[in-house]
Amino acid sequence: MASANFQLHDSLFTTPKMRAVFCDRGRVQRMLDFESALAKVQSRIGIIPEGVAQVIAIKCDAALIDFGALGRDTALAGNLAIPLVKQLTALVVNDDTEAAKFVHWGATSQDAIDTGLVLQLRDGLCIIEPALVELSTALAVLIKRHRNTMMVGRTWLQHALPITFGLKVAGWLDAINRHRQRMAEIRPRILTLQFGGAAGTLASLGARNLAVADLLAKELHLTTPALPWHSHRDRSAEVATTLGLLVGTLGKIARDVSLCMQTDVAELAEPATAGRGGSSTMPHKRNPVGCAVVLSAAIRVPGLVSSMLSAMAQEHERGLGGWHSEWDTLPEIVLLAAGALDRMTEIMIGLEVDPQRMADNLNRTNGLIMAEAVAMVLGSHIGRLKAHETIEQACQQAIRESRHLRDVLSENALIQTYFSAPELAALINPANYLGATQQFIDRVLAAAEESNL
Amino acid sequence: MASANFQLHDSLFTTPKMRAVFCDRGRVQRMLDFESALAKVQSRIGIIPEGVAQVIAIKCDAALIDFGALGRDTALAGNLAIPLVKQLTALVVNDDTEAAKFVHWGATSQDAIDTGLVLQLRDGLCIIEPALVELSTALAVLIKRHRNTMMVGRTWLQHALPITFGLKVAGWLDAINRHRQRMAEIRPRILTLQFGGAAGTLASLGARNLAVADLLAKELHLTTPALPWHSHRDRSAEVATTLGLLVGTLGKIARDVSLCMQTDVAELAEPATAGRGGSSTMPHKRNPVGCAVVLSAAIRVPGLVSSMLSAMAQEHERGLGGWHSEWDTLPEIVLLAAGALDRMTEIMIGLEVDPQRMADNLNRTNGLIMAEAVAMVLGSHIGRLKAHETIEQACQQAIRESRHLRDVLSENALIQTYFSAPELAALINPANYLGATQQFIDRVLAAAEESNL
Amino acid sequence: MASANFQLHDSLFTTPKMRAVFCDRGRVQRMLDFESALAKVQSRIGIIPEGVAQVIAIKCDAALIDFGALGRDTALAGNLAIPLVKQLTALVVNDDTEAAKFVHWGATSQDAIDTGLVLQLRDGLCIIEPALVELSTALAVLIKRHRNTMMVGRTWLQHALPITFGLKVAGWLDAINRHRQRMAEIRPRILTLQFGGAAGTLASLGARNLAVADLLAKELHLTTPALPWHSHRDRSAEVATTLGLLVGTLGKIARDVSLCMQTDVAELAEPATAGRGGSSTMPHKRNPVGCAVVLSAAIRVPGLVSSMLSAMAQEHERGLGGWHSEWDTLPEIVLLAAGALDRMTEIMIGLEVDPQRMADNLNRTNGLIMAEAVAMVLGSHIGRLKAHETIEQACQQAIRESRHLRDVLSENALIQTYFSAPELAALINPANYLGATQQFIDRVLAAAEESNL
Amino acid sequence: MASANFQLHDSLFTTPKMRAVFCDRGRVQRMLDFESALAKVQSRIGIIPEGVAQVIAIKCDAALIDFGALGRDTALAGNLAIPLVKQLTALVVNDDTEAAKFVHWGATSQDAIDTGLVLQLRDGLCIIEPALVELSTALAVLIKRHRNTMMVGRTWLQHALPITFGLKVAGWLDAINRHRQRMAEIRPRILTLQFGGAAGTLASLGARNLAVADLLAKELHLTTPALPWHSHRDRSAEVATTLGLLVGTLGKIARDVSLCMQTDVAELAEPATAGRGGSSTMPHKRNPVGCAVVLSAAIRVPGLVSSMLSAMAQEHERGLGGWHSEWDTLPEIVLLAAGALDRMTEIMIGLEVDPQRMADNLNRTNGLIMAEAVAMVLGSHIGRLKAHETIEQACQQAIRESRHLRDVLSENALIQTYFSAPELAALINPANYLGATQQFIDRVLAAAEESNL
Repeated sequence: MASANFQLHDSLFTTPKMRAVFCDRGRVQRMLDFESALAKVQSRIGIIPEGVAQVIAIKCDAALIDFGALGRDTALAGNLAIPLVKQLTALVVNDDTEAAKFVHWGATSQDAIDTGLVLQLRDGLCIIEPALVELSTALAVLIKRHRNTMMVGRTWLQHALPITFGLKVAGWLDAINRHRQRMAEIRPRILTLQFGGAAGTLASLGARNLAVADLLAKELHLTTPALPWHSHRDRSAEVATTLGLLVGTLGKIARDVSLCMQTDVAELAEPATAGRGGSSTMPHKRNPVGCAVVLSAAIRVPGLVSSMLSAMAQEHERGLGGWHSEWDTLPEIVLLAAGALDRMTEIMIGLEVDPQRMADNLNRTNGLIMAEAVAMVLGSHIGRLKAHETIEQACQQAIRESRHLRDVLSENALIQTYFSAPELAALINPANYLGATQQFIDRVLAAAEESNL
Repeated sequence: MASANFQLHDSLFTTPKMRAVFCDRGRVQRMLDFESALAKVQSRIGIIPEGVAQVIAIKCDAALIDFGALGRDTALAGNLAIPLVKQLTALVVNDDTEAAKFVHWGATSQDAIDTGLVLQLRDGLCIIEPALVELSTALAVLIKRHRNTMMVGRTWLQHALPITFGLKVAGWLDAINRHRQRMAEIRPRILTLQFGGAAGTLASLGARNLAVADLLAKELHLTTPALPWHSHRDRSAEVATTLGLLVGTLGKIARDVSLCMQTDVAELAEPATAGRGGSSTMPHKRNPVGCAVVLSAAIRVPGLVSSMLSAMAQEHERGLGGWHSEWDTLPEIVLLAAGALDRMTEIMIGLEVDPQRMADNLNRTNGLIMAEAVAMVLGSHIGRLKAHETIEQACQQAIRESRHLRDVLSENALIQTYFSAPELAALINPANYLGATQQFIDRVLAAAEESNL
Repeated sequence: MASANFQLHDSLFTTPKMRAVFCDRGRVQRMLDFESALAKVQSRIGIIPEGVAQVIAIKCDAALIDFGALGRDTALAGNLAIPLVKQLTALVVNDDTEAAKFVHWGATSQDAIDTGLVLQLRDGLCIIEPALVELSTALAVLIKRHRNTMMVGRTWLQHALPITFGLKVAGWLDAINRHRQRMAEIRPRILTLQFGGAAGTLASLGARNLAVADLLAKELHLTTPALPWHSHRDRSAEVATTLGLLVGTLGKIARDVSLCMQTDVAELAEPATAGRGGSSTMPHKRNPVGCAVVLSAAIRVPGLVSSMLSAMAQEHERGLGGWHSEWDTLPEIVLLAAGALDRMTEIMIGLEVDPQRMADNLNRTNGLIMAEAVAMVLGSHIGRLKAHETIEQACQQAIRESRHLRDVLSENALIQTYFSAPELAALINPANYLGATQQFIDRVLAAAEESNL
Repeated sequence: MASANFQLHDSLFTTPKMRAVFCDRGRVQRMLDFESALAKVQSRIGIIPEGVAQVIAIKCDAALIDFGALGRDTALAGNLAIPLVKQLTALVVNDDTEAAKFVHWGATSQDAIDTGLVLQLRDGLCIIEPALVELSTALAVLIKRHRNTMMVGRTWLQHALPITFGLKVAGWLDAINRHRQRMAEIRPRILTLQFGGAAGTLASLGARNLAVADLLAKELHLTTPALPWHSHRDRSAEVATTLGLLVGTLGKIARDVSLCMQTDVAELAEPATAGRGGSSTMPHKRNPVGCAVVLSAAIRVPGLVSSMLSAMAQEHERGLGGWHSEWDTLPEIVLLAAGALDRMTEIMIGLEVDPQRMADNLNRTNGLIMAEAVAMVLGSHIGRLKAHETIEQACQQAIRESRHLRDVLSENALIQTYFSAPELAALINPANYLGATQQFIDRVLAAAEESNL
């Protein structure tokens, strides 16, 4: 067995598709794509001899690279590009000594590494964006199915007021809608070429430097930036912060789901999969493995984002240490975000919802959660604070005597003054106290559909 | 003297204008603005009695609040809104017992606190955005003045290739251009009302709840969100990440300036101000105080951003701890960002540039930084790697013998084969090796001007 | 009202005692204590004239300082020490022009600021250490009272196996024991003098520099370090990390308590205090305000710790930005730690425990949590995996049919082979499956008592 | 080529020895070591049949494990232990069906994973501790060689006062001394067994549970904790914070070295290695690759530490997400720390020091850095502030007129009043203004030697 690194957790924490993009091989291939495109456009406009590009292009294949040697030489060179260009040149020499002279012509290491990264990030966004659509779709299905499924709303981990499960999910979807918008906004800023030569002037390419840059960007389907951004890292850092926000939302959803999955609550369950979430010692358990993964990402990513931000103060034309610290940090964020998104989508597609249990829990406080409903109407008669105090006392009595709030209230003179028994019963019925739940749901669904256009 | 908190550092780390927005008084006033507007619109559509709103509005003045009592009661209540509403109600009672019944009608604590925060953030953005314009203008002036001022480009803290100081500043401005774009993008997402009642359904307001919400948003010049976002914190967290990116760029600029201010480099100096940056013991020193402040912000903000992201996994309809952790963290970020931006603008407006010293330093390596220039042209004759090796040996010889690279090269047979002496001299003249510097500068200036439209 | 900074949250997030230590006035007084002690020892050994020290000492009183001017001048000077020394000198001049010449003699700004900080940290430790003892005592009381109070142990937020509440608290105390040990270990490293003059050589003090340093340390009851540590910040950073670990544990306890306080669980409740944890709109609620504060600290402190660590790479003999970034960050950590510790101690002293509810919840799964108990004994007959599968199926049947696991198992042939009905009943009784609970509790209590010696 | 993960950067960012400890294989082997030892001690005291242990032990070999399947099954199970125990059981079944029944007897997944981690951490400490000794030795050599090599001390990146290079290195060593002390202190807290069964009671093992635990600890050369610490993570988090502090110091040293390596300063150089630190385009460059790696670690580790601290609030008896987030984070910290330490030791062993350049730079300010020296003595005559002002004016004159401070001062009437020309010359000679440099060096060397005993 190859002395594997941390691959054992890959299937847990990320997805195979994203791992295929962000792995050593993916990184090297994208750097080679840069080299290949560079030769191609330089050949096209005659900066390097015609014919050279094809020879180089053939060798720009990660399968031809000796990764062991590449790793070893990276330690000496301080970055991947230098030994990679050497290997590439050696490969080309075998076929065509002349062509070998023009490998990596006029570029600097960081051009290849950063543009390679941009290409990987584009691949990454192309995985994340449809995954967000898929999650949105799953959430919309849940919303529509459960827009009237009543449950208790909880604040500060206490039962508060009735809501519907559909509304809870609409809150999740609303946030996802915003994340889709953010992804769209950062695209043009990040999907841009890095090409500046050693100090960002493109001096090495002589008079036609900008022509090369523009063609190279076009070839790689990237935009041309105003100027090279070697030591200005807000672009890559913004990918980190944007995914950080997304993972934060996923963590929030996972927290909700896992709390609803508590044995003591039992309103939701992650989809049952053979062998999933079992315990090595407790045969009855079904652990929220998916939520654990998402919550784990939500704990890890903020620290990684702060590393990306800390790395931004890079020195002069190309920095020392800051840039290096991004190399594995940003991929880690993308991998974790992809994993969290995938796990969450899986959960939402197969989420088990127990409306009966939700109804049971809704009533668990013997009507206490309807205290506000009564207080509001009573307040319109006797003022907010007075009403609040009256109802608070009734609540305490209900708790003390283990009775339903309705029964305690029905004996209260002040209540009797303002409400008949049926009025009180209607007032204390959770189904009558859902406010704008349906309208909120409609708005969120409409916004989600609009995003899909 | 009042037992002041951390105010001594305020004038160093932030600005008086931003501190006026983000201080206890500012916070309370903005919450009171929410309460006042709420009463106003509820009065207007008849949810609460006519006339009540004016009575309440008069009392919605932070100057009437007993901050000492407010602080003490906050410890019991767990948030500011509960005791603030109590004080406000007590104030209103004095004038109009009837009106007092309708203070904070149908709202929850978080509605007041979050909307108050949004109003503060708007004030904050209204300080930061023009400050960004001011910084951009200062940078543009520097660029125009120094577009031809030659200096050495440095990579890995080593002399690399010639650039102009104008190009260096253009890199800074280019990043600031992007930050202005980001600020514009987050505005609509953050400048939105929070209004949902206890569990986000607005049930407490009966049939006209959405009407109240819409009018309230209009009254406060905010947008209406699809639904309340009590436990979905991507909005506030995005303010943190966006300012985090900005501070990262400011840190990068400060790092550049402070490195150029080293006694050993002496190309730049922060503006001289009487009494500024002196040492308590060393009379000759002029410390880069402004850069220290900006770098300090660049070190502090990433950790604060990670706290904001960590806080996102908030439970159910309103969270426990996560929300609380934002209260002082986000203001701290805004305050530090404003301070860093202000210090940086001051520096840029008065920056002292020493072109002669830049020229001296450019030549400090005896021509070694022009090695690439020669290598590129030589490479077009004999191939990149071969040329690289030839020039590398010449460089080492130049270092060994403390001679100018031009002189060493002029004795080299291979060089003599391809270049005449005047050709070599031209090749090794830094002014001839600036690449697309002028075009890059033009592009950045054009983009900055476009942003100003 | 003075335009207060963030003081409104002070009573929520920290303690008055710690705020008295870490506030502007506290900081300034401790710096003045340094100046006073410095003059005293220099006077004593004749480096400055006899009598000067008394004159200076009288003025080393924060009450005499103009804090407004101090704040303004700090912005120019870049640190507090320079303008403070100026004010102090001006105060001394009034009484004795001669003495004024010797204020701050031979010291650098950082000597005063860092030693002042060390003195504040000592005060801080003197608050935290007894607070840890108080928390330990409260935990020990709970353990002894509830060492036999059965409840369900939960893993992955699922019911797992029976434990006792005493064991749960013993786990908390065990961690606190370790934190007390850590506090003791860092004391000698942090409680050490900073005194090096401008570049850490003490050159300014001539031949008797070390004598001054040693006497100064003695005067302030600090140790003398091997050499000044101006730009070596592992000492201050270690205070941050050590408190970070403590706050992490407090967060864990708060998480446990708040989960047990859920309306759905209701096993624990924070102590009831008049007015505490009420909701502005829901009269029945009692919010876990204390837990919210502690969890909030547990979210904020990690980011602050990372800022302290990021600040460590300080340049040369005294750094630029890194040092500045510590000034408000470390105090913030200490303040939050003190607040979290205080809230947690309050909670533990008055914690309401509901053993009946714990017993009810323990049985909520109809015996499923005893599955392992049966599986283990069965496994000793038929092997672990086989037993696991058998019991897993029985569990699923019990869930499907809403029956008690005991009843399902009693019909199982394999079970019947190995166990009589009474044996099965004993096996499935949680009280018989507590393992080493009592011994674990004894060990932790013993270790805690040992710490108190 | 195996689809490698992030191995290409391994040789740059960590060491082969540490990677051998912290890789998938290392992790699995250490978990198997736990399983093997568990069987051994259980067999010894008769909890499982005699002979079983040997059969199991033979299969506890990572070489027998199917890592591909293990990774896939981990995604379902949510942790490595469950599928690993399954594979192990299957391997044992092949040889001995009876023995297979007793694999992982009475343990829970986390017991295997955490104890496995502790064993890895011990291996890690066994690499880091001697590496710290090696670094200390290299530093001591440098100190002794350069205790009299004069250079300029720099504060705020400005020339301040003379120091010696030996003193600078002594500051580095002094911090390393403290880190060695910290490592020693955390050893007993971290090198402790994790063994509690599903909910930390060891109920699964019946009456002899503690005997098994004690023997197991002894077998693995670990201590027995007071009780299992499944959800109390201060132990593992403390490894993170302690290494975080160490990496902070290494970052500080790397910052110093890289600043001294600037082309503009050129006082130090990383050891020259063939092929190291070359540029792909600039043949003359020698990049500080080692410093880049160390600084990169110093940027990355703080965020990783904050993740570890954020993870601490784990739920109940075993947490959800928090624990999972540690799995790759803590190893990453250890790997980066080992890499940074190794790179720094390499740098220190081969560091190139240029005393001539140091001397040149020391004089670069034309004596300005000696201003304090004169000011102190002058101050003893005319008072500190007055002297400060006098010298400050002389400094400004010297700068304005590009003259040596000595020459400017020699014309000053006030100076002439108090000093003869030779006195002034002596006063302004840096070699006479080194204060306690030699004594500081001696103390640090003595402390380092003491640590080695």
